[in-house]
Amino acid sequence: MPIIVTDPPRADRATVDALAAYGVATVHEAQGRAGLLGSHLNPVQQGVRIAGNAVTVTVAPGDNTTIGVAVEQCGEGDVLVVAPTAPCDMGYFGDLLATSLQARGVRGLVIEAGVRDVADLNEMGFPVWAKTISAEGTAKGNLGDVNVPISIAGRIVRPGDVIVADDDGVVVVPRLRAADALAASKAREEKEAKARARYQAGEIALDVNNMRPLVERAGARYVDYEDWVKEQQA
Amino acid sequence: MPIIVTDPPRADRATVDALAAYGVATVHEAQGRAGLLGSHLNPVQQGVRIAGNAVTVTVAPGDNTTIGVAVEQCGEGDVLVVAPTAPCDMGYFGDLLATSLQARGVRGLVIEAGVRDVADLNEMGFPVWAKTISAEGTAKGNLGDVNVPISIAGRIVRPGDVIVADDDGVVVVPRLRAADALAASKAREEKEAKARARYQAGEIALDVNNMRPLVERAGARYVDYEDWVKEQQA
Amino acid sequence: MPIIVTDPPRADRATVDALAAYGVATVHEAQGRAGLLGSHLNPVQQGVRIAGNAVTVTVAPGDNTTIGVAVEQCGEGDVLVVAPTAPCDMGYFGDLLATSLQARGVRGLVIEAGVRDVADLNEMGFPVWAKTISAEGTAKGNLGDVNVPISIAGRIVRPGDVIVADDDGVVVVPRLRAADALAASKAREEKEAKARARYQAGEIALDVNNMRPLVERAGARYVDYEDWVKEQQA
Amino acid sequence: MPIIVTDPPRADRATVDALAAYGVATVHEAQGRAGLLGSHLNPVQQGVRIAGNAVTVTVAPGDNTTIGVAVEQCGEGDVLVVAPTAPCDMGYFGDLLATSLQARGVRGLVIEAGVRDVADLNEMGFPVWAKTISAEGTAKGNLGDVNVPISIAGRIVRPGDVIVADDDGVVVVPRLRAADALAASKAREEKEAKARARYQAGEIALDVNNMRPLVERAGARYVDYEDWVKEQQA
Amino acid sequence: MPIIVTDPPRADRATVDALAAYGVATVHEAQGRAGLLGSHLNPVQQGVRIAGNAVTVTVAPGDNTTIGVAVEQCGEGDVLVVAPTAPCDMGYFGDLLATSLQARGVRGLVIEAGVRDVADLNEMGFPVWAKTISAEGTAKGNLGDVNVPISIAGRIVRPGDVIVADDDGVVVVPRLRAADALAASKAREEKEAKARARYQAGEIALDVNNMRPLVERAGARYVDYEDWVKEQQA
Amino acid sequence: MPIIVTDPPRADRATVDALAAYGVATVHEAQGRAGLLGSHLNPVQQGVRIAGNAVTVTVAPGDNTTIGVAVEQCGEGDVLVVAPTAPCDMGYFGDLLATSLQARGVRGLVIEAGVRDVADLNEMGFPVWAKTISAEGTAKGNLGDVNVPISIAGRIVRPGDVIVADDDGVVVVPRLRAADALAASKAREEKEAKARARYQAGEIALDVNNMRPLVERAGARYVDYEDWVKEQQA
Repeated sequence: MPIIVTDPPRADRATVDALAAYGVATVHEAQGRAGLLGSHLNPVQQGVRIAGNAVTVTVAPGDNTTIGVAVEQCGEGDVLVVAPTAPCDMGYFGDLLATSLQARGVRGLVIEAGVRDVADLNEMGFPVWAKTISAEGTAKGNLGDVNVPISIAGRIVRPGDVIVADDDGVVVVPRLRAADALAASKAREEKEAKARARYQAGEIALDVNNMRPLVERAGARYVDYEDWVKEQQA
Repeated sequence: MPIIVTDPPRADRATVDALAAYGVATVHEAQGRAGLLGSHLNPVQQGVRIAGNAVTVTVAPGDNTTIGVAVEQCGEGDVLVVAPTAPCDMGYFGDLLATSLQARGVRGLVIEAGVRDVADLNEMGFPVWAKTISAEGTAKGNLGDVNVPISIAGRIVRPGDVIVADDDGVVVVPRLRAADALAASKAREEKEAKARARYQAGEIALDVNNMRPLVERAGARYVDYEDWVKEQQA
Repeated sequence: MPIIVTDPPRADRATVDALAAYGVATVHEAQGRAGLLGSHLNPVQQGVRIAGNAVTVTVAPGDNTTIGVAVEQCGEGDVLVVAPTAPCDMGYFGDLLATSLQARGVRGLVIEAGVRDVADLNEMGFPVWAKTISAEGTAKGNLGDVNVPISIAGRIVRPGDVIVADDDGVVVVPRLRAADALAASKAREEKEAKARARYQAGEIALDVNNMRPLVERAGARYVDYEDWVKEQQA
Repeated sequence: MPIIVTDPPRADRATVDALAAYGVATVHEAQGRAGLLGSHLNPVQQGVRIAGNAVTVTVAPGDNTTIGVAVEQCGEGDVLVVAPTAPCDMGYFGDLLATSLQARGVRGLVIEAGVRDVADLNEMGFPVWAKTISAEGTAKGNLGDVNVPISIAGRIVRPGDVIVADDDGVVVVPRLRAADALAASKAREEKEAKARARYQAGEIALDVNNMRPLVERAGARYVDYEDWVKEQQA
Repeated sequence: MPIIVTDPPRADRATVDALAAYGVATVHEAQGRAGLLGSHLNPVQQGVRIAGNAVTVTVAPGDNTTIGVAVEQCGEGDVLVVAPTAPCDMGYFGDLLATSLQARGVRGLVIEAGVRDVADLNEMGFPVWAKTISAEGTAKGNLGDVNVPISIAGRIVRPGDVIVADDDGVVVVPRLRAADALAASKAREEKEAKARARYQAGEIALDVNNMRPLVERAGARYVDYEDWVKEQQA
Repeated sequence: MPIIVTDPPRADRATVDALAAYGVATVHEAQGRAGLLGSHLNPVQQGVRIAGNAVTVTVAPGDNTTIGVAVEQCGEGDVLVVAPTAPCDMGYFGDLLATSLQARGVRGLVIEAGVRDVADLNEMGFPVWAKTISAEGTAKGNLGDVNVPISIAGRIVRPGDVIVADDDGVVVVPRLRAADALAASKAREEKEAKARARYQAGEIALDVNNMRPLVERAGARYVDYEDWVKEQQA
C-alpha cells in the first residue's frame, strides 16, 4: 500500500546553501568518498550547481501519479528525487510539473528515468539531472511512495537528506552528517587551493602528494625507451 | 533485391509546418501517445525544431550507398530517415551528403546509427538526430531500400509520414492522420496553457487534474514522519 | 611489475600540428579508414580540435596513481592517453591534474573512463575526451604502466603516436606513418573541396562518385509508388 | 484507441512447418538476408526450434493486459509476438499465460521485454524468446493493439507472418513470401550440404567460394612474418 | 571509516525456508510487487532456488578485502549480498571464498559485480547470482562496510533481511515483514493453483480475471481483418 | 591495404597444453593479473577449456571475407582470434567455417562480434567465445588483416600468443612469456591447494591471508548491531 510521509525533518538551510558552493566532487571527497549517485544521471543543463533537501519519490513504471502527489509535500529549498520501482525510461516529468515545483521554491529534480519538454525546462531555468530524455507519456493510477528511503542510482536517499548536484553529477549527504560534511568540504577546499598553486608553479603530484615511496613500493621500474625495445625482443 | 520506390505521396505542407510549431511532446500526446521513436536517438544540435515528410532508407551495415541513392528521391520539405538492417554504429553521414540535401531543401536527418563532421554540420545548420557520433567511414556497394516502410527505433515509419523532431526526440505521424494530429495538438496546447496558468498561480496537479480520488482508490495512506519512524521499528 | 618507459620518440611537431588542422574524419579516411577510437569516447567540450604525441598510461581499476606518475613523462605538445586495465567508470582525473598538465604544455586528455571537475576543466580550457563524467574518487597505490603500447577503445596506441581529437572523436596515427597521413589528408581535403562545390551546385553523389553502375550491379529496381502498392497486395 | 483485429489470414501450415525444419540462419539467408530480429532477443531454452503464424501484440509499458486480450485471438500453430510501446524490462509473461497458450496449441512466445516463472516454463516445455528475465509484476488497465503491424527488435512483423525461432534467434517471413522462402531455403540447404562435404575434406572457403580474385582485387598483400617485422621498424 | 556491524538479528529460520519453497515471482507478488532486484543480476547456475538471511557488504571498486572480512560475520543459513561502491565488473569472488562460505553453512552469494572460477562453483554446488563473469583479479587494502543497509540493483537490503533467489532473479523481504510475506505467498499460490486449473481447461485470462469490463473501459475496438485493411486505406 | 602475414612463430605446444590445464583465472593471476579479455566475451558452450596459438584477424564491419582468408593461415593447435574494425554484432561465423577449422585441427574461436549456427557448433563440439549470437549474414569483399597485432576486448593480441579460454572467459599470454606464465601458474595452483584445504577446515581469509593488520590499518571499526542502531539515531 502506497505511503506518503509528511513533514520529514530537513537539514539546516544555511548548511545546505554552503554545501552547494563547494560542489559535488569536493563534498563527495569530504565525506570520505561516499554518496555519489551513478554517473548515468546527467545534467540536462550545463553549468548549474544546486543543493537542497530531498523529497523522495518512487514511481510505478510508466506512471507518474506519485510525482503529482509529491509536489504537495515539497517546499522552499527542496529537491525532488525520483526513482521508478522498475527501470522504464519514459518521460515522467515535463514543463507543467516544473512550473508547479518552481512556484513552490523547489530547486531542481533528480530522476533515474526520463524527462521531456527540455526546451521549456531550459527556458524556465529549472535544473534537472536525469537518466534520459524522452517525450514518451506516462499513465496515471498506480502509486509508489513519498518520503520513504529509496534506492536510486546505487545509493540510499532518505527524506531530508541533502542533495548537491552540478556538472559532475549528484551526491547525497545524510541529513545528520550535513554539518560534518560542510566542515570537511571547507578543509578540503583549502588544501586543494594550496596544491593548485604548487601545480601551477610546475610541481607534480608525485612530489605534492609524496607519492614516490608508493611508486617504489609497487615495484615500478623506470626504463629508457631504447632499452625497453631491446627487452621486448628478448 | 533492393527496391527504390519513387514519388510516394507526401503529407500536406501547411499541416507539416503547423505540426512543427507544436513540437514532439505535444504531437506525441495529441495522437494518443503514439509514434515516439526510442530515446537513444539524440539531437546533435540543441534548440532546433523541424518537421518534414519522411523519405525512408535502409542501409546495409557499414555501407552508406543507399543514402546516396535516396538523395535523388528527396525534395523540398523532406526529412531523411535512415535505419541500418543490422546495428552498426559507424559514421554513415557527413558534411558532403548534408550539403547535397541542404541544396535540395531537405530539412534534416534522423538516423539510427552514427554521423560525422559534426563541426561542419553545426556550422551549416543542418539538423541531425542520431544514435551516436562516429567518424568511422563506411563502404560502398551493398544496398538497402528507399521509400518502403521501415522499422526504426521501435516504430514503423512509412514514406510520406510526417516526422517532427526537437530537443525531446523524434515522433512520427502517419500521413493520413496528419490533419487529425494537428487538430488534436492545437486542442492539447490550449488545455495545457490553461493548466500552466493555474500551476503558476500555485495550484497543484492533484487538484488541476482532479487526481485525489485516484490517490484514494490506490489506497495511499498519509502518515506523519514521527509516526512513520515508530511504525518502522514495530 | 609496473614499467615506466622514459623518452619515447615523438612524431615531428610540425606534422602533428598540420594533422590537427585536418581533423579526425579526414585523417581517419586519409590513412585508409584506420585508427578511429570507439565512439563511446566523447568530447567533454564542444568545438575543440587538438593533436599531440601520445603518452600512454594504463591505470589499475579505481586507482589513478599511474596518471600522477605519467605527468612527469609528459612535455610540450603531448596528449595523455589513459586506459584502465578493467572497465571502471570512476573519476580518475580532475582539475588538479589538469593544472599540472597544462603547466607542462600538454594539449589534452583521452581516457576510457571517467573525469570530474568538469566546470573547472571548461573554465581552464583543458580539452578532454572521456567515456563518462563521474566525481567518484579513486584510490592510490596500485600501478599500471607508462609509455608501453596500450589497447584503448578498440585500437592499439603506442607512445609517440599522433593523437588527433575533435567533435567527431579520436583517431590515432602511428608515429612512423604521420608524414604519409598528412600528405594523404591534404589530398583528400582537396578532393572533398571539389566535391563540395559540385554538391552545392545541386549535383548528387550518384553522379559525383559515379555510383550508378554500382547501384545497377546490386540489382536495385526503381518502381513507382502506385505500382509498388499493387505489388505488395499480390 | 486500442484495436483488436480478428481473424487475420495465416500462412499455409505445411509451409510453416517445413520452414521450421530449416532453422533461422538458413531461412534468413534464403530470403536475401532479411527479417532477422535483433540479437538482444535470446532463447530462454536451449536446443528448441519452432515456427508459427504471428499474432502481434503491443503492450503499454509495465502493463500486460493486452497479452490477456491476445490469447483469445490465438489458435493452433500460432506464435505470440509482443512488443512494449516503450522499453520496459518487466515480467509481462509467466506460467499461467503459458498454460493458457499451450492449451490453445500456441507454439511459443517472442517478446521484446521480460518473462518470469522460468523454471515452470522449462518444465512445461513452452518455448520463449525474450529480452530479459524479470519477475517484476505488471499492472492492468492500459491497452495496446492486437494483430496490427508492429515494430519489434528492428523489424516489422505483420499478423499472419511466419515466425521461425531457434538457438540463433528469431526471423520473420512475410506471409505472402512464405512459399518462396521455403523453396529458397531448400536450395540453400542443398548448396550448403555440398560445401560442407568439401570443407570436411579439407578444402577452404577461398577455393570453395572462389574468393581468391576478390582478395586480389582488395589489394591484399601476403608477407612473411620475418619480412613484416622488418617493415614495421622501417 | 569502514564499519563492520556484528550480530544483526536474523529472520526466523523456518519462515526463511518456507519462503524458499514459493520462489521469487510468488514472494515478490505476495508482498505487493516489492523488493525485486534488477534483472541484470543473473543466476550462474540454472534450476537452483535458495533463501537465507542477508549479510550485507559494500566493496571498494576493484578490491574484495571486505568480502574476506564479511565471511567472519556469516553463519548457517545466511546469504552474502555484495555491492561495489562504484560499478566495476571484476571478479571479486571465486572458489576459495566459496569454499570458506560453504564450510560455514552459507547458502549462496548475490553480487552486483563479477565472479570467477565458475567451473569450480558449479562443481561445488555453491549458488551465485551475479552481474557478470570475470576472472579479473581484485586488489586488497580498501574497505567498505559490513552489515549496514546497502543499495543493490535498485533496492535497499538491510542485514538480516530475507533473500530469495532462483531462475527468475532475486527478491528481498524486509526481516520484520517475513511472516506476512509468507502468509501472503501461501494465499497467492493457492489462488494461482485454482487459476492454473481453469487455464488448463481452456478458460482464458479475460474471463478468469474478469478483465472484459476493463478492456471495454479502455475503449478497445474489435474489428475484422478485412474491415481493418479497408480502414487503413481510407 | 590489407596485409596477410604468413608463418608467425608459435609458442611451444607442450607449454600451451599445460597452460590449458590451469585455466583462465589461474593463468591471469599467475602472470600478474594481466591479459584478461573483457567479460563481454562469453563462452557459447559451458564446461569447455582450451588453449592454442593465436591467429589474429581483423574483419571489416559486416564482412567476413578475412576469416576465409585466415583459415588458410591456421593449423593444428591454433585458435582464431577475430575483431571487427568497428563494432558490428552480426553473425560472422557459422558451421561451415567451423567445419573447415576443425578439419585443420584448430581448437576454437574467440570473436568480439556475433556467431550463428549455434546448434550445429554445439553438436560439432567446436568451442566458441563470442560477444553475441546473431544469424545476421555478412557481406564479402572488404578485407581486414591477418596475423598483425590486434586490439580485442581491451587487450592487445599478437600472432602466436597463447590464448587460454574457459567458463571464466579468455586470457592472452604473450608468446615469449608463455614458459614463465606456466611456471607461475604451477606455483599459484600449489599455493591455492594449500589455502583451499585450510578453508575447508574452517579457517577464513582474514587469517589464511594474514589480512587483519590490513583491516586495522584501514581504520575499520567493529560495532555491535544494537550499538550501531543507537549511533544512527544520534
